[in-house]
This record gives sequence, C-alpha cells and structure tokens, in this order.
Amino acid sequence: MAERILSVRGGKPVYAGDLAVVEVDQVMVVDSIAQSFIERMQRDLEAVPKYPERVSIVIDHVAPASTVSVAQAQKEAREYAAATGVRLFDVGRGICHQVLMEEGLARPGWIVLGSDSHSTTYGAVAAFGTGMGATDIALAAASGKTWLRVPESVKVTFTGNLQPGVSAKDAALEMIRVLGADGATYQSVEMHAGDRFSRGERMTLANLCVEAGAKAGLVVPGGEILTDYGYDIPEWVYPQAGATYVREVVLDLDALRPRMSAPNEVDNVHDVAALSAELRGMHVDQVFIGTCTNGRIEDLREAAAVLKGRKVAPGTRLLIIPASSQVMEQAMEDGTLLTLQRAGAALGTPGCGPCMGRHQGVLAPGEVCVSTSNRNFIGRMGDKDAKVYLASPAVAAATAVMGRIALPEDVLAVVGAVGGY
Amino acid sequence: MAERILSVRGGKPVYAGDLAVVEVDQVMVVDSIAQSFIERMQRDLEAVPKYPERVSIVIDHVAPASTVSVAQAQKEAREYAAATGVRLFDVGRGICHQVLMEEGLARPGWIVLGSDSHSTTYGAVAAFGTGMGATDIALAAASGKTWLRVPESVKVTFTGNLQPGVSAKDAALEMIRVLGADGATYQSVEMHAGDRFSRGERMTLANLCVEAGAKAGLVVPGGEILTDYGYDIPEWVYPQAGATYVREVVLDLDALRPRMSAPNEVDNVHDVAALSAELRGMHVDQVFIGTCTNGRIEDLREAAAVLKGRKVAPGTRLLIIPASSQVMEQAMEDGTLLTLQRAGAALGTPGCGPCMGRHQGVLAPGEVCVSTSNRNFIGRMGDKDAKVYLASPAVAAATAVMGRIALPEDVLAVVGAVGGY
Repeated sequence: MAERILSVRGGKPVYAGDLAVVEVDQVMVVDSIAQSFIERMQRDLEAVPKYPERVSIVIDHVAPASTVSVAQAQKEAREYAAATGVRLFDVGRGICHQVLMEEGLARPGWIVLGSDSHSTTYGAVAAFGTGMGATDIALAAASGKTWLRVPESVKVTFTGNLQPGVSAKDAALEMIRVLGADGATYQSVEMHAGDRFSRGERMTLANLCVEAGAKAGLVVPGGEILTDYGYDIPEWVYPQAGATYVREVVLDLDALRPRMSAPNEVDNVHDVAALSAELRGMHVDQVFIGTCTNGRIEDLREAAAVLKGRKVAPGTRLLIIPASSQVMEQAMEDGTLLTLQRAGAALGTPGCGPCMGRHQGVLAPGEVCVSTSNRNFIGRMGDKDAKVYLASPAVAAATAVMGRIALPEDVLAVVGAVGGY
Repeated sequence: MAERILSVRGGKPVYAGDLAVVEVDQVMVVDSIAQSFIERMQRDLEAVPKYPERVSIVIDHVAPASTVSVAQAQKEAREYAAATGVRLFDVGRGICHQVLMEEGLARPGWIVLGSDSHSTTYGAVAAFGTGMGATDIALAAASGKTWLRVPESVKVTFTGNLQPGVSAKDAALEMIRVLGADGATYQSVEMHAGDRFSRGERMTLANLCVEAGAKAGLVVPGGEILTDYGYDIPEWVYPQAGATYVREVVLDLDALRPRMSAPNEVDNVHDVAALSAELRGMHVDQVFIGTCTNGRIEDLREAAAVLKGRKVAPGTRLLIIPASSQVMEQAMEDGTLLTLQRAGAALGTPGCGPCMGRHQGVLAPGEVCVSTSNRNFIGRMGDKDAKVYLASPAVAAATAVMGRIALPEDVLAVVGAVGGY
C-alpha cells in the first residue's frame, strides 16, 4: 500500500528504499510545535503556505492554556492562522488526529504530515499519515510537497473476531508486543482486517503503529469506512495481489484477551488476567480515559457499560476527556456522559489531557495511573517515579471501580461499591 | 447578625470591636494552601485536628494537577486526609464553597473558616464565613475554636425586583461599586433582601462582599433557603429589631441594568449599555463562565438561554466550567450542557478553572477576557498585560456570541452567526 500510494502521488513507480517526492494533502501543526513552525516559515524559509487550505493548526496539547508562555504561543498560532488563511481548530475542538478525521481532512490515498508522532493514525482511512518535525513540516507547507524514503512493508493479518470485553486497543497492544518497540522502524505496517473494525477502531490500530517505530500504519479499507463515511476510495490504495513483505504476522482475535502495557515501554505487554497478584493488588491513584488512541464515542460507551450504576473506588481518580467536541456532544446526546458523571468521573475539555504530562492530571512521584493512551515512558505523564499502565477503556473503567487493575468481569462481582471523587 | 451569631457561638454577648472566641463548625482547606496547613499542624503545632469531621480539604484550585509539584501537594493532602480522618473532596468534585454548601457543611448560625478569600460565600445561608491564612486555619483545626474581633455591620437593603436580563451578579457588582473596594474593610455586610434571591443568588452576593474588604457577608434568611433546603434556622441569626449599623445602603433592583467591572479593580463598575463605543467594539479573546461566583446551574441556564441555537463568534473562546459535579450532572440532565456544547463552548472539569490564572485558560499578553468570576486585578488570570472584565453569565454569553462586549438583547439582532472553537 505504501509503495502504491507514494507511486501514484509522486507520479512515478517507486519501491521500498526509493526516494519519493509527493504532493502533501494536509499539513497538521499542533499548538506545542506552532511557534517553531512559524519561525521556520517566516525566518528560515521566508515563505507563506503554498496552499493555505492544506494546512491545519490544532490547539490541543495544552488546551486551555496552563501558563502565560503557552497562552502566548497559542495567541501567535491564532494570529498566524488569521494572517495566512490556514485552518485553525481552537481550544475545545479536540485532539488533532480526531479533528482532522472528523473534518474530512484525511482521506484514502492522501498524504498527511503531522507535527505529532501519532500522525500514523490517518492510516485508518488508508491515508499515508506520518509524523515529522517542525522543519520538515514547514518545508511541506511552503512547497506543497515532501520527500520520503519509501518504507518497507510489514503485513499484519487479523483473523477471527474480537470476543466480548476485548477491544481494538487490546489488538493494537498485542500487535506492538509481537512487532516489538523497534520492530517496524521506518516501515509501513499494513493491516489486513477485512471488514472488521470501525473507523474509530482502525484509528486505534494505526495510532499505535508508531510505537513499533513505524513510518506509517495503513489499514486496508473495508467494512464501515467503505460505506458509512462516503470516502472515495481509489483502486490504487489497495495492495496488489502477490505483494511481498519484509515480515508477515497473523494475529488471532478469537484468542485475544485484554492486554496491558506495563511501565516503561509500550511493548511490555501482558495478559491482564495473568498479571502477578502483586500487580493486581496494587493501588491505582488515577485512571485516564481519552486521547487520540481511545477518546472516541465507542471508547466512552465501552467505559460507560462498565461504570453504569457503579462508582469510582474511594482514593482513585477517574479522568475522562473526550477526543473532540463532536464526541462530547454525541456522549451528551446518548446519555453516555451522564453515566460517566454519575459514576464519579472528572470530565475534561476535549484535547490531549494529561497524556504527555503537561497539565490536567500530572502524576506525582510514586503515583500509579492506568491510561487508555499510547505511551508509558518514564516521566511521560508527570514525575519520573510515577508509573503508567496502558489498557483499553473497559479495563481502565473496571480499574477505576475496583481501585486496582481489574477486568470488566471483576466489577460484576462487586455490589454497591461506593466512592468517587 | 454578626454580633448575634458571635455572641451565641461564643457563649457571651459581644459587640462590634469586642473579641469573641467561638466554636468553629467547619474548617475548609483548599489544595493550594494544603501543604502550608499540614506543615503548620504537624511541625509548628504538633497537633491533629480536634474534630476531624469539622475539617474539609477540597482539591479545586488547580484540579486536575497541572505540574508535578501541584500533583505532589495534592498527594500529600490526600494522605493527610486518610491519616487524620478529615473529609476530602478530590479532583472533579468542584469548587470548595459550592461543595461545602451542597454537602450541608455550611448552615445558618455556623462559623465556617476557609483558606480562600471568598469564604464570605457561606453568608448566603447566614453562616459566618470568612477567609483566613494557613496559620489561623491550622489553629482552628487544632483547637476547634477561633478568635475574632467582632466586625461592625453595614446594612444593604435591596428593594424592587430584578428585571429580565439582570441578575444577582449585577446586583453584587452594583453593591461593590456603591460600597467601594475598601468601603467595608473588616465589616460585616448584612444584606436584607426579604424573600428575593435563591440560595445560589445569595451565594453570588455574599461571595462578592470580600471585594469591598468585608470580613463577612450575611444575607438575612428568607424565601427559598427557608423552605427548599431543610435548614434549621435559629431565631438568633436574625438581626434584632432596632439594630444599628455603621452605614446603610439601599439598592433598587427595579432600576438595575447589567453591570460590568472593568480592569483592574472590582469596584470599577459600569453600566454595560453606557460603555464607550471603543470598549463595546473591542475584540474579546476569551469568555469564561464559572467560578464560585457564577458557576451554578442557574448561571449555566442563564448562559444557555442566550446561547441556544447560536454559535460563539469566530476568534473568541468560550470556556464554561460548572462549579461542581452536582451542577455538571444537573446541566446534563436538563439539556443545558448540550445547548452550551452545541454553541461551541469548551467545557472544563468542575473546579476553579482559570479564575486565578494557574491553568485551564491562562491569558496571554494583550488578551481580553470577559469573566463571570470575582477578581480582575492585574495579572489575575495570567499575564499582567491581559485585561479582565467581570460580568453576569448572560452578558458573558452575549459577549461570546458577538465576540465583543454585548448585552443579551444585542444577540437577538444577529441571525445565523457562525463560528465556535
């Protein structure tokens, strides 16, 4: 898929290892990189965006602003957007990847460059999405193009079906475990899932690919994204019959059980049911449900199914931050948000929340957090002596109810638990 | 009222200027003072709370935590609460004053000391509420008592009725204008309103009294708080017939129009309709609806009435932070929150929000904010070159729709405005 997309978009056939120069359909800049991006554009390149409609600035990483310097950077981003005509998604609109997807700014066959490492997410709709630094992003904005070394491809085939209580996040964590944290460095992870997985689930899968070092994570179009979203899917985004891969992996969803990534590497993935008694008995201080990995409506519904009529355990905080204003609105309309609120969740402004430890739930030394996000590196969510465990929304919700790492079925055994806040 | 409450609670008749030693019914400690409070208790006083059930710690000022050091302070507060048995209201439960009121921890005739200057709020239910520093708070927690110089009393009488589009916040701002920022220093502002004003409106009035320098702001019980909340109201909290005051002020609600406090003093209060064309035309960057002054369900409904079917102006951010989890839940149940979300508001975790400029909406240099909060001092919400204008929820909402300072009636003239985020 990577070779085909980059061949068509570069105007000549290219293969793994070749250099491709391609049109860029969307350049995405987040608030925390905006100042560097603007400086590159104005001072180093002395350029304006060639196609303003192909550039989006999203204020999501520290939104609303937590300090004067953050506020100043966001102010400059707004002024830049107003002056150049690029799109701006301001405080509260949501997380960059979710917003671009909702706005139709990532589409099958598109090239989307983001100033955020999880820009592989756009592969959910067969867009070649990848993360780059401020300089590369600025060059793409100024020229309308980028150059890429064509990545090799790894084929991941999903068989069987997700069992109850198991989600795409578990499949994604299992995939990273099998691939390894540097197992797909600068490769394209091409996921074959037939008509399995919704668009949101595909986003979760593509999102995690960067945790294996991948340049892109492409899901072969199928199912809901062919029918429900009205995408025009060109024939050339599909892998050719007989395509070859540097590695092939098969993941059996029938056998998959809830997974958890333990500190301090994403590929340190375990079967939750098989965790040591010590880990299962450990007090959990904070549970965080949200992010570009798991902040969508299906994720909140999954959490609400576990939390309905129950309460967060005393001594445990549950932060829930919808991925976008659209998700927030859906969750209000269908009662999901009320269920979460009644359970004792602290809801937050759509955006990245505490995922990268810059505000809204920073961890103190020694604290333990179970999070639906995508990184558990040392210091990621706050102090270097805090621990982050990555899991699905259902496992996170069950953990919030029990105050310790738990499976959804564990909470069924508890009647009349009290607490919250 | 102040003399009577302090006489009864001190066990002997006292008058303005006397020293009273009184039982303290509730000591309230907020997260930002908790470390100092604990240090005073443990290191200086070597004491534990005499009556743990009379001490509440509320994590609201920077909640969820925005930095590791804030997270560490909150962790210590939780540990202290667990070790001593004092109440803890954790992240997301809401703003201290609102939470204590909802929990029945401020009642007619009670003495409530808070480590927050707006502890005058408890006067809404005829509790003698006042703010103190960490040392005085710790002494009260350790001994169960406090000493107070009995304040002189100022009588404020409200006549007439609030007109449509005018709220208790306008009445409160007008009261501060008339009294002056240091016009009631160490005095008790005793408000006579008959059965006017709900409990929430009374909280707004009592809350603002500290902005005239008052030690307490006591509303004579009447109306809803006599009937709807089941308070036991002792006869001795009412002022005696023939009581004398150092000053008497009458405020005619019939004549009151929406008010706005301009930078950088709370008593710099103007009639919104009479603001200069320059001020009325000025771009507003951020609108904030929330705080212990105006984050209650009636405030959100007032804002929703203006925002319903409309959109926040492009280039203006609207932050709405309910005062408590209970308010959040009510606003979900009655559709208020959905109306606000659809209008383009960025909703935040119940708590103090950006009121004191420590997170969740800090202002950049040169930015203009219209806020329903209670202070517009230089640098209060962020940079010293930002400007904060205080107003009612209705005026704030109208301002968000217009992108400039506006009255509710101004938005009626606008059809099909677009924007948000």
